[in-house]
Amino acid sequence: MNVPAPTDAVRLRGSGPAAPAAAPSGPSPAPADEPDLRHHGDAEVRGDGGGLTDLAVNVRAGTPPAWLKAHLAASLDSLAAYPDGRAARRAVAVRHGLPVERVLLTSGAAEAFVLLARTVRARRPVVVHPQFTEPEAALRDAGHDVERVVLSERDGFRLDPDAVPEDADLVVVGNPTNPTSVLHPAAALARLARPGRTLVVDEAFMDAVPGERESLAGRTDLPGLVVLRSLTKTWGLAGLRIGYVLAGPGTVADLERAQPLWPVSSPALAAAEACSAPAALAEAAAAAEEIARDRAHLLVRLGEFGEIRVAGPAAGPFVLLRLPGAAGVREGLRARGFAVRRGDTFPGLGPDWLRLAVRDRATTDRFVTALAGVLR
Amino acid sequence: MNVPAPTDAVRLRGSGPAAPAAAPSGPSPAPADEPDLRHHGDAEVRGDGGGLTDLAVNVRAGTPPAWLKAHLAASLDSLAAYPDGRAARRAVAVRHGLPVERVLLTSGAAEAFVLLARTVRARRPVVVHPQFTEPEAALRDAGHDVERVVLSERDGFRLDPDAVPEDADLVVVGNPTNPTSVLHPAAALARLARPGRTLVVDEAFMDAVPGERESLAGRTDLPGLVVLRSLTKTWGLAGLRIGYVLAGPGTVADLERAQPLWPVSSPALAAAEACSAPAALAEAAAAAEEIARDRAHLLVRLGEFGEIRVAGPAAGPFVLLRLPGAAGVREGLRARGFAVRRGDTFPGLGPDWLRLAVRDRATTDRFVTALAGVLR
Repeated sequence: MNVPAPTDAVRLRGSGPAAPAAAPSGPSPAPADEPDLRHHGDAEVRGDGGGLTDLAVNVRAGTPPAWLKAHLAASLDSLAAYPDGRAARRAVAVRHGLPVERVLLTSGAAEAFVLLARTVRARRPVVVHPQFTEPEAALRDAGHDVERVVLSERDGFRLDPDAVPEDADLVVVGNPTNPTSVLHPAAALARLARPGRTLVVDEAFMDAVPGERESLAGRTDLPGLVVLRSLTKTWGLAGLRIGYVLAGPGTVADLERAQPLWPVSSPALAAAEACSAPAALAEAAAAAEEIARDRAHLLVRLGEFGEIRVAGPAAGPFVLLRLPGAAGVREGLRARGFAVRRGDTFPGLGPDWLRLAVRDRATTDRFVTALAGVLR
Repeated sequence: MNVPAPTDAVRLRGSGPAAPAAAPSGPSPAPADEPDLRHHGDAEVRGDGGGLTDLAVNVRAGTPPAWLKAHLAASLDSLAAYPDGRAARRAVAVRHGLPVERVLLTSGAAEAFVLLARTVRARRPVVVHPQFTEPEAALRDAGHDVERVVLSERDGFRLDPDAVPEDADLVVVGNPTNPTSVLHPAAALARLARPGRTLVVDEAFMDAVPGERESLAGRTDLPGLVVLRSLTKTWGLAGLRIGYVLAGPGTVADLERAQPLWPVSSPALAAAEACSAPAALAEAAAAAEEIARDRAHLLVRLGEFGEIRVAGPAAGPFVLLRLPGAAGVREGLRARGFAVRRGDTFPGLGPDWLRLAVRDRATTDRFVTALAGVLR
């Protein structure tokens, strides 16, 4: 066993709706003992000179594919013209069987969070944790008092719709959830929708779930539903900044008014259009099946370690695991050439948690060897 | 003479500070008789199938250059990684001799306008017109009451610092100004800076002015100075969305906090870094000299028409001209294959104004032949 001393532990937060953490108006920083909501996986691999094998960032390996890169390279010929998002918007609408008025292209999902935080008038916004921290950070920056519903490991991080306050008029939940990898049933999420409430379902990883089962994209029967999608993870376009919002026409119009002029670049628009085509969808579906197989292999290998507990059933392209002294293990893995995502910056988790991206079997096997070296 | 009836005349606005046009809070649309502030040159060439010669959009022809396109294509190899703006920020800082804390990269100047509108607390914001309409539109959208100082043709659209209200705590001015092409003296602009006032100088076209004379970029002695720069026009990157802000560290930090996560794409960052290198600056300087020569030729040719008055002296990569029935002339030019920018959507101008991009001599000569066909 070779575990350096933990350097980055933070206090675990309590369960259930937390007391408001932000002042009534104006941005308010998280308390000093709070997780750093602005920490993201890319920080774990920055500046390493490319020497680390990356299991910290949830972007599919080997992406973008050659055909997409060639398509984007061709789009550079029209860079002198201002972006025209109409064709991409149409393509996304067709892909989800929706009218264009229900689609808004954004500069990554991150822009969508900021637009929602600035646009949606909410008296009682609730974020379901543990989840991607950017929605809460954006809401706080926009002056919202954010309450948390913290799902517990005991319940398998499964969503309990009854845990969400009845009068919450903005609810944010991820599906499948980053970092727990739990896929909530569409029916459970649908129960959260009601008139007078904006229900934001972050489906950034849904295209990595075979059949996109449990997706609410394309649903028009749920009042206040806002679905966020990303092309970043499956297609390896994190650097391009492209995502989109599916919502009612009124919400889409509100969000669009809050966008800067020409919010999405021409290459990003070209990517959105190309990745919405039937051939691309088939490729994504095949990749989702492959991820499921690779994840099964990873879970089997992790099962070799008695001290590791995996949240789940995991349904995303990453798994969340608990093991004592995880912070030190992470340092040990780093010394052995592997970057993994710390879990302690997610509200509701703590220093014993790590998130691993699903990689191919060979990479997983190499990783497990390194992990064994750290733990034994 | 073959002039269709004008279809898009609007009422000319008066000179001097105008009455507040926006409600005290919340976005307020422009009055019905107002120019459409959201009209931009790209609308003049959209959907024409590429058949029109474009004198409407102020992007340098033949751009981006091959070396830059190749550089951007190479950057596509790292799209799977999240953007890391540090190197680009350093490069821009070095280019202007500033510390990085005074530089913020943005998703085009359009994002900078929105960030400023949301971040700067101003009780009396003033926009100097005629100028690019997006700053005022962004301020209004953010709930500001915007006052206008409208420069007059009689004064050659020259800035009179004394026309700006003493207690204006936010002043926005373009230099060289779009659409008038007038280059205000740096000393006149500097007189507008003072403690308690944010002075925003939009230098989107400054790199097309030989020697960048009259630029305030790099100045650190002027309180509240915010300089906006663009890489779009000289480098043909309108589709990529890249610009930057030069300002005091406090203002930069405020603007940065209002940005979404990962606001600028990796290819845009690659462009910013490459276009700040000495070789690129030399190329831009040579292009600026060429534009000056091409503009001189355009002005000589326009001088052949007695009915045309050109604002100026023109210093930008475009010229503003007045001729009776310009709206109809624009339609006539369109029928002859040339797109030009209508002037009537700029506050302070009216239906008699057109803006022309400076093009090479051959294009200008073809254009003048078409113009003669319309006017005679």
